[in-house]
Amino acid sequence: MQSPICAMLDIEFPLLAFSHCRDVVVAVSKAGGMGVFGAASLPPERLEEELAWIDAHVGGKPYGVDLIVPNSFAGKGDSRSTPPTIPDEHKAFVAGLLEKHGVDDGNLSLPAVGGGLGENMTDDGAAKLLEVAFRHPIKLIANALGVPPPLMLELGKCHNVPVAALVGTRDHALAQVRAGVDILVVAGGEAGGHCGEVATMVLVPEVAEAVEAVGATTPILAAGGIVTGRQMAAAMAMGAHGAWTGSVWLTTAEAETNPVVKEKMLLASSRDTVRSKSRTGKPSRQLRSPWTDAWEAEGAPKPLPMPLQSLVSEPALRKVDKLSEGGHEGAKALATYWVGQGVGLMNEAMGAGQVVQEFKVDWIAACERLNGFIGD
Amino acid sequence: MQSPICAMLDIEFPLLAFSHCRDVVVAVSKAGGMGVFGAASLPPERLEEELAWIDAHVGGKPYGVDLIVPNSFAGKGDSRSTPPTIPDEHKAFVAGLLEKHGVDDGNLSLPAVGGGLGENMTDDGAAKLLEVAFRHPIKLIANALGVPPPLMLELGKCHNVPVAALVGTRDHALAQVRAGVDILVVAGGEAGGHCGEVATMVLVPEVAEAVEAVGATTPILAAGGIVTGRQMAAAMAMGAHGAWTGSVWLTTAEAETNPVVKEKMLLASSRDTVRSKSRTGKPSRQLRSPWTDAWEAEGAPKPLPMPLQSLVSEPALRKVDKLSEGGHEGAKALATYWVGQGVGLMNEAMGAGQVVQEFKVDWIAACERLNGFIGD
Repeated sequence: MQSPICAMLDIEFPLLAFSHCRDVVVAVSKAGGMGVFGAASLPPERLEEELAWIDAHVGGKPYGVDLIVPNSFAGKGDSRSTPPTIPDEHKAFVAGLLEKHGVDDGNLSLPAVGGGLGENMTDDGAAKLLEVAFRHPIKLIANALGVPPPLMLELGKCHNVPVAALVGTRDHALAQVRAGVDILVVAGGEAGGHCGEVATMVLVPEVAEAVEAVGATTPILAAGGIVTGRQMAAAMAMGAHGAWTGSVWLTTAEAETNPVVKEKMLLASSRDTVRSKSRTGKPSRQLRSPWTDAWEAEGAPKPLPMPLQSLVSEPALRKVDKLSEGGHEGAKALATYWVGQGVGLMNEAMGAGQVVQEFKVDWIAACERLNGFIGD
Repeated sequence: MQSPICAMLDIEFPLLAFSHCRDVVVAVSKAGGMGVFGAASLPPERLEEELAWIDAHVGGKPYGVDLIVPNSFAGKGDSRSTPPTIPDEHKAFVAGLLEKHGVDDGNLSLPAVGGGLGENMTDDGAAKLLEVAFRHPIKLIANALGVPPPLMLELGKCHNVPVAALVGTRDHALAQVRAGVDILVVAGGEAGGHCGEVATMVLVPEVAEAVEAVGATTPILAAGGIVTGRQMAAAMAMGAHGAWTGSVWLTTAEAETNPVVKEKMLLASSRDTVRSKSRTGKPSRQLRSPWTDAWEAEGAPKPLPMPLQSLVSEPALRKVDKLSEGGHEGAKALATYWVGQGVGLMNEAMGAGQVVQEFKVDWIAACERLNGFIGD
């Protein structure tokens, strides 16, 4: 396909697949798109293992790595020496919520020091992950939150690896262009995970226009709600050069998504998600469940700032995941995961490579549909 | 253009323009789209005058009328005999908010009985408006909220006038198809005025798929955030057959929009809107201002059910509009109006006919952009 994204990343079809699952990354890259491995919460030694596995299986096809390295966060650079304090109110709320669903709240703890999102979001932790990532033949490095730190941009330039960054507003997009990122991932409010409020249908043309207005040529990947080729084509008609996707891979055969959550996603309509601060401290879109409903209800504790809220939610949700997979009814009800409104269009489980093929076919069909409106 | 919408409405370009301003309706219809006159809050005698004016100026081109006739509302059929009661809390809140901005809260009253949204939303009021509308050569009748009442569907059939209805969810779309509407206006959460939560990028393909799955062929107008031809093309690539627009006409030369608000809209970014119940009692998207901020703030009164909340907000906002046009600083700050996130792309005032031309040019450019991605 004639897209600057294809030229820049040496791929055939400008479809990027964000996934925490190495099998998805490999399958998408082999099918002509690009898998981007989400490594934000992995300890460096696990990232090393995962990338070595990808290298061994991807057959030389290009792939990328995605991190979350914010420029500002609570407890910056200091997560070991002063362990963060979780208010009793939050602890009691989680305990009560779990108890209500028959889930024992004992043994809720994050993995040992050296792993976890909190650790990786310090300067030290992020540097270690970057070091590992750049030891591998990655073809893209992406930052999921805010302007990438200078170290990431520098390493990208040194290794000739394009740096992508997620944005949810026009002004953030322009800040990224000024900072020198190579690819903008423009994510509408319908996206799963961290997202802004402006919808993809408006944000993509708004950013495309703003980038052009400052004389820049930074290519744009549209994100947010995109789970089909017709939506990808729509975004590209509006000024994007490709698509960045996440949700659609969660229900693929290769994905390690909790089977209970996978089933919920296949049944969900586009209305079954909520944008809430309750998981990470920043607004992120996720599948609605009694867990998210409780945090959204009146009287619930105010979510803590990032990364503290993750220390409240993740241990509980990991336990919920584990129990739900074993058939625990209360846990099955509570189980949730990040997903975008596009979940309403995800109705069939298939292989990740097949999803890429479907995107291609659907993209072409959408283009033909559009051409068909033009009279003779 | 080869679209079932063009065939059904006898228009050249499937762009529908909702406007309360008769000049916009006429300009759009004459330029090859279709103007749809928003009559929801007019007394029948005013509607008669307006439609007579349109008939005299539209040169035989097709136009439509849009009403709000809900199937359920507070005080149904009974608005005269039992005047609605506004809680003191709401009155005091509005008085305090106005006072804070130097606006006298005296003389806040709705027009006399026989007009206003509240009256038109009773069965009697709606029937009178329908009667007037069908005395004119309208080519479309649209209902902006819920399944049209049987009377509207029946009159449409009798007069061979297609009936359109706005929907914000897949299930509502299917209910409309079952009820027999002729055109679905599928409105994403980025739309101005009443809107749901699901974004256009997801809702349009979701509804298109669902309509097809039940074996229906009801054509779809995409709405929500669409203010340019490229967005219209995008929606049509995803399964829509045309676009329904509202916001983009508010800043045209013909629009009777409060000039203060018009200027705010031209300067606004896509983030400067809010989806709030504070204006009508149902969620509607509007330009953010200290007025909307106050209603969204903690401790604000809970908006009343439709149509009572309009009795709280409209008199105050009319006064604000009037004072702001006279240069009152506090009123200028408070002034607001319904508008979608597409306001971020509305940066230049132009004539309504010119907007239609720009849509056409931009639609073609978007189609060419999409075709350009396909390699030789």
